[in-house]
Amino acid sequence: MATIQDVAKRAKVGVGTVSRVLSGNGYVKEETRSRVQEAIKELNYTPNQMARNLFFKKTGLVAVIVPYISHPFFAEFIDAASEELSKYDYSIMVCSTLNELKQEEKYMEMLRRSMVDGVIFGAHKLDSQKYQAVDRPIVSLDRDLGKNIPCVAVDHVKAGRLAAELLIQGGCKNVVQVMGSKDIKDEILSPSENRHTEFERVMKEHGIACRNVYFDADSFYYESLQTEVRKLVDTFDGWDGFFGTDILAMSCAKYAQEKGLRIPEDIQIVAVDGTRVSTLAYPELTIMVQPIEALAKECVRQIMLLIQDKREEAHDTVLDVEIKIGNSTICKQIQ
Amino acid sequence: MATIQDVAKRAKVGVGTVSRVLSGNGYVKEETRSRVQEAIKELNYTPNQMARNLFFKKTGLVAVIVPYISHPFFAEFIDAASEELSKYDYSIMVCSTLNELKQEEKYMEMLRRSMVDGVIFGAHKLDSQKYQAVDRPIVSLDRDLGKNIPCVAVDHVKAGRLAAELLIQGGCKNVVQVMGSKDIKDEILSPSENRHTEFERVMKEHGIACRNVYFDADSFYYESLQTEVRKLVDTFDGWDGFFGTDILAMSCAKYAQEKGLRIPEDIQIVAVDGTRVSTLAYPELTIMVQPIEALAKECVRQIMLLIQDKREEAHDTVLDVEIKIGNSTICKQIQ
Repeated sequence: MATIQDVAKRAKVGVGTVSRVLSGNGYVKEETRSRVQEAIKELNYTPNQMARNLFFKKTGLVAVIVPYISHPFFAEFIDAASEELSKYDYSIMVCSTLNELKQEEKYMEMLRRSMVDGVIFGAHKLDSQKYQAVDRPIVSLDRDLGKNIPCVAVDHVKAGRLAAELLIQGGCKNVVQVMGSKDIKDEILSPSENRHTEFERVMKEHGIACRNVYFDADSFYYESLQTEVRKLVDTFDGWDGFFGTDILAMSCAKYAQEKGLRIPEDIQIVAVDGTRVSTLAYPELTIMVQPIEALAKECVRQIMLLIQDKREEAHDTVLDVEIKIGNSTICKQIQ
Repeated sequence: MATIQDVAKRAKVGVGTVSRVLSGNGYVKEETRSRVQEAIKELNYTPNQMARNLFFKKTGLVAVIVPYISHPFFAEFIDAASEELSKYDYSIMVCSTLNELKQEEKYMEMLRRSMVDGVIFGAHKLDSQKYQAVDRPIVSLDRDLGKNIPCVAVDHVKAGRLAAELLIQGGCKNVVQVMGSKDIKDEILSPSENRHTEFERVMKEHGIACRNVYFDADSFYYESLQTEVRKLVDTFDGWDGFFGTDILAMSCAKYAQEKGLRIPEDIQIVAVDGTRVSTLAYPELTIMVQPIEALAKECVRQIMLLIQDKREEAHDTVLDVEIKIGNSTICKQIQ
């Protein structure tokens, strides 16, 4: 099989020139370029990606680390990030930590071994120093991993406020919101916490009872979430409003209806996320939609800037949320 | 930074010996091994993964190519395959073709460039010769890609037969089954076709009307599937049984209920797949469950055999389906 050296020899140029023609970076005289391309053709030369990457000190890979690929939010994020990365001729390496510390540590080791050019982090089980210590470009999705690591998230405060207002204007007097699990490292904060804080603040401001439910469960795993929601519905004591992510909201609608409770007459529901899965809910849910595709595009844009050493300054990015009105709330428009 | 050559020099051995110590493959005298390990420690040597892979002619990566990562069946398959591959110290490279021919071609090119050691194919937009021409290990998920390419699938014939019997014993007289789209290359067959053929055969045997609906849509994309199911429900003309994948079945349940039709009194539904998403359906669906985790484990087992050159003979593997009875059928047990 022909090597880059063979091509250089045949075209009577240096290996560096061949690599410039291959990468499309750097100046090469038109006549020389033709000669190199002809040599490539004559020798039927295919650059071995591994050798090529070693040469350019690039892997052409960006890792996206998430708790579960099968969680609909992350699945859709990955599809969108994958499409976006391909525009930069990059491939995605998807890493699922299964929400386990040791899996995440394994991926950190992979980083240390230079297997990828950059990482988009959607998982955060480690101490923040660990992320700070990585000397590769990192962008964080919806997690504050400390200084110099850009974080891309939606406007959770707005999501919390609008959700509260929808339930208040629909006449709720006694609401429940489901928070993440409590097992997350103290040091690592997610901007999504602000959603819960703001929701509670608005409720209290209007004198409405707001119960915060923490699940002692893996917050990204279907089965455990559903079990917890079922318990909540089984011990129903007259709460009339529910706020939680798609899976929680769909589970709440399902179990409430199985118990003979009506949506929205007995319980009003506002979901947050707006993944495709939520479109299968019956009844149709009212949702604070996260623009997943835009989040993915922004994460990719930022990681590519970092990889190309073009960063001006690390900064957090906040994208807007959108309201989608369904049949799970009485109020159809915020006044 | 120390290289493998530095380690060899310090330990007074050849590079090959160092590599045997690193890989754990091949015989190395205990005393020599200790000396190499000491040199590694003294020099604080970390093998660069790219260099290491180039040395062993392995990438440590298996690609899984699917139409959409965000389709729940593939998302769960990937999570399970990822976990299984990590047991072999392999990482997964997830490739989403977005059900487009040119994306799949791009990934085929990546294969040609030796970026991965093997591929699990869950997409099939190309001509079968293209798959046959790949000189890397391939395992196919639920697609017949031609001779010498092992195919792992469930017992679709059994799924079709049991689904038909459940609807017949529940009293259905006029059923609808939704097939995949017609745009799949003629040459590439999916064993899942057998499910539809068997379902129709059993219905006809019992003198029951069976309509096969082909959607002129991307069969893995939520939005288009839902639009098609909505049309089907909107033009409801008295069919009383429905057979389709999770997303189709959930959409059918949703739109039928919105139209005031009762499940299972007016329409009985049997789903196929049994992804986690299906557990969010209201009412609870009766499902022919594909053992997604077992499918993933078997695909990984076979690809690792091929990568390690341990294949005895290419062969297809058929796994069993399981019935999960819900509230979308009248019959609760097959006689």
